[in-house]
Amino acid sequence: MDRRSFLRTSALGGSAAAASTLAAPAYAQGKRTLTMVTTWGRGLAGVHDSAQYVADQITAMSDGMLTVDLKAAGELVGAFEVFDAVTSGQADMYHGADYYFVGQHPGYAFFTAVPFGMTAQELVNWYYFDGGMDLHDQLGEIFGLKSFLGGNTGAQAGGWFRNEINGPDDFNGLRFRMPGLGGEALGKLGASVQNIPGAEVYQALSSGAIDGTEWIGPWADEKAGFQEITKTYYTAGFHEPGAGLSVATNREVFDSLTPAQQAIIKSACLEGHQWNLAQFLSNNGAALQRLQAGGVQIKEFPDSVWEAFGQASAETLDGYMDDPLYADIRNSAMESMKKSSGWIQRSEGTYRAQRDRVLG
Amino acid sequence: MDRRSFLRTSALGGSAAAASTLAAPAYAQGKRTLTMVTTWGRGLAGVHDSAQYVADQITAMSDGMLTVDLKAAGELVGAFEVFDAVTSGQADMYHGADYYFVGQHPGYAFFTAVPFGMTAQELVNWYYFDGGMDLHDQLGEIFGLKSFLGGNTGAQAGGWFRNEINGPDDFNGLRFRMPGLGGEALGKLGASVQNIPGAEVYQALSSGAIDGTEWIGPWADEKAGFQEITKTYYTAGFHEPGAGLSVATNREVFDSLTPAQQAIIKSACLEGHQWNLAQFLSNNGAALQRLQAGGVQIKEFPDSVWEAFGQASAETLDGYMDDPLYADIRNSAMESMKKSSGWIQRSEGTYRAQRDRVLG
Repeated sequence: MDRRSFLRTSALGGSAAAASTLAAPAYAQGKRTLTMVTTWGRGLAGVHDSAQYVADQITAMSDGMLTVDLKAAGELVGAFEVFDAVTSGQADMYHGADYYFVGQHPGYAFFTAVPFGMTAQELVNWYYFDGGMDLHDQLGEIFGLKSFLGGNTGAQAGGWFRNEINGPDDFNGLRFRMPGLGGEALGKLGASVQNIPGAEVYQALSSGAIDGTEWIGPWADEKAGFQEITKTYYTAGFHEPGAGLSVATNREVFDSLTPAQQAIIKSACLEGHQWNLAQFLSNNGAALQRLQAGGVQIKEFPDSVWEAFGQASAETLDGYMDDPLYADIRNSAMESMKKSSGWIQRSEGTYRAQRDRVLG
Repeated sequence: MDRRSFLRTSALGGSAAAASTLAAPAYAQGKRTLTMVTTWGRGLAGVHDSAQYVADQITAMSDGMLTVDLKAAGELVGAFEVFDAVTSGQADMYHGADYYFVGQHPGYAFFTAVPFGMTAQELVNWYYFDGGMDLHDQLGEIFGLKSFLGGNTGAQAGGWFRNEINGPDDFNGLRFRMPGLGGEALGKLGASVQNIPGAEVYQALSSGAIDGTEWIGPWADEKAGFQEITKTYYTAGFHEPGAGLSVATNREVFDSLTPAQQAIIKSACLEGHQWNLAQFLSNNGAALQRLQAGGVQIKEFPDSVWEAFGQASAETLDGYMDDPLYADIRNSAMESMKKSSGWIQRSEGTYRAQRDRVLG
């Protein structure tokens, strides 16, 4: 959709235009439609589902006072235009991966995932108990957004390759799709990194415009159909160990809602995070078996590649430390990760190892 | 509180008596107070917090139409009396660990944790995507309850002992506090197992009525003060690898709520599950450091003990298979666990191992 037709749509039927002209008290009286734009093509497994789940829960809980109207990528604005659409008030809220917006501020990377960063559970620990949400709010003050974590894919797969990766040099010159700071780290290994919206990745890989791609994990990747193009799949990845998805509401719109409606958005997002993570994790195992049955070769990167990933990730994360808010976010996130990961390993990690050993 | 004063309180101010006499449509018109009883002493770290969080979120989201009045254990009924209080309509809902109610039905164990069973995330995967909630509903049909997962402690610590455990024989004759099917498994190793509400465990251990106890993990255990009594602490345990806490509402009361109010309860519970798990995991690491600094010795059970745990757990879980609903629940849970645990190990497990190796 071009900008002219976007404006026409908005003026005719969208709530966005209204949102910036009505005074706050007026909102509290009546029923409202909130337009949610997303970074996901309609129907993309897991990520579109996550947006729809949060939208539907807000609608259901508000008893008809709020109706969230979900516009998938391209239906109102393009995938990467949602941030500007919400900050400008053209849409009321977005559901997306905040690391798409590292150009707006590099600190946003941490609210999706950074390379060698937090797992899904470590992200929630940080967000709700170690200052993460407050730092998300500080970013939101710059751009006029109120954000919450609203979904999570779990640890993402290393991705799809045309050829096996035997060492760090194999990334040199590789045209690879990977967003965020993970992509920047891969660039330090010589890869030509591209950031392509999910709905367009299949075409890019199929046409040979890129040599490989990461997307999410077995279930979403199978639905996207990458196994039709190549059969070499790396399961564990370094780049998104627990990718959080965010719901960001235009700050003026959020402030105009009643306290109960604000509580409903917060709750729908946090339950959406838990629900979506379970959705991915319950579907990935069976999908991986199907992929293998269809001839996909499952691989793991050798240790030398993990070490190169680690060094490139550290260099990448170091590169933004002159921004004070970025530095605050990084330091806070890494401190929280260290704090919680030790116990998780000692308790659940030890348990899982013993369960696997004893049960076979 | 004795039964007479319970009845007096209920007649004077509780909503429970009203709940069983008013017709459903009347509820929808006006403001209601729902009485939530819990299995937790007021202020017990993490578990009481979890109940309070869910109660407050329901109240906040319903915009004053529902007010959840939390009565901690002993304030209206005792910890282990909450199930009967809600099934009978004396209270509207409870927040508690369903494995306290294996006497009502052994299938309830699976909605908290069973020995050598699911981690917290595996539990949510099963509950929301592999049939767990439907089976919880089937139990609820027997007893007149509508339940949701509403909290989680994460993988629980092995517990506090007066003497080191060097082999399975060291459990012979040990008087130990452990609820649920984990406790039954420990009994097969010769332990004299007791089920004592959380608020009473300190006194039991302190007085010598028991030789040892598990409670939750470093943070909650430190708050309970067990380190004042003994200094031998086992971190990883076999008995509760991810203890879910449930919110159960009297079925007639639940059915009398509006769809929006029902959606609010569901959402508050699922977000409460995610919030509570993060609360425990973000606090345990620092608490463990404080315990160690205070002289507590951190131990792990030897492999021979884990093997004995494994065998006793399997025998325990086998013991109820003549009940068809229990068998359905067990088979469903174990199938889901196998399905999701493989991918979790291959993705997040491999990532964590590489992160620990590369970052040191």
